[in-house]
Amino acid sequence: MNISPATLSDIPQLCDLLELLFSEEAEFYPNRALQSAGLHQIIENPDGGQILVLREGPFSFGMVNLLFTISTALGGRVAILEDMVIQAAQRGSGAGSRLLQAAINVARSAECRRITLLTDRTNESAQRFYRRHGFTSSEMIPMRLVLSA
Amino acid sequence: MNISPATLSDIPQLCDLLELLFSEEAEFYPNRALQSAGLHQIIENPDGGQILVLREGPFSFGMVNLLFTISTALGGRVAILEDMVIQAAQRGSGAGSRLLQAAINVARSAECRRITLLTDRTNESAQRFYRRHGFTSSEMIPMRLVLSA
Repeated sequence: MNISPATLSDIPQLCDLLELLFSEEAEFYPNRALQSAGLHQIIENPDGGQILVLREGPFSFGMVNLLFTISTALGGRVAILEDMVIQAAQRGSGAGSRLLQAAINVARSAECRRITLLTDRTNESAQRFYRRHGFTSSEMIPMRLVLSA
Repeated sequence: MNISPATLSDIPQLCDLLELLFSEEAEFYPNRALQSAGLHQIIENPDGGQILVLREGPFSFGMVNLLFTISTALGGRVAILEDMVIQAAQRGSGAGSRLLQAAINVARSAECRRITLLTDRTNESAQRFYRRHGFTSSEMIPMRLVLSA
């Protein structure tokens, strides 16, 4: 089992993982063309973010996505963590913890001062998982405006 | 009253506005050196975001910050809206609505498919303001990990 940055050839397997994730999340729905387009843009622009892939031989069974931006509150780079998913059969094996820890290390190496993520309010096991790795709940709430293309 | 992108010479007045904002928000505290450093990085990297300033002659009395990133769920660019603040004396005059509407237009022009913001759970007037402009509450909750430098 090893963890390394995603390349363009990983995109089909990453789309499979995102299909699983977006089938489970309340706010999102799988759409392979959109996932493929988004993954391309992130992989081709490493200054904007990095996708880490958990691999065993040719198989990718987990991924997590760090996106970089700037915080005026903290005076520098911060990360947004998205698309954290482990294939169902490998859950509970510690694979998710290894992957999240690798993402935290990448964020530190990239001199990010904070990692922020959004998780489903009803997904208590996800919240426990992130708390075990040092994340704390924020008292802020997200609001969204979808812009038609 | 006009709205235009921030330049480096706006930074002192923008720091004053952020001092006001971070004094009112629960999760953040003013620190002029950090705010100045973050503003510099955003203004010098227009691909990563854009700060809009509400001006009357030489005075800046409002600002809002759009940061660009990529969504795998939506297959392209999305925006994070931060640092929306209007000087106390100008509130209630419609200035905030003009500024937010300008930010939505910038996000549309930049082909962003969604705008996400975080606002204090206890700040009901801010939530009403964003709802009036089409934002809806997400059922997700933010979690954060602060990384020591």
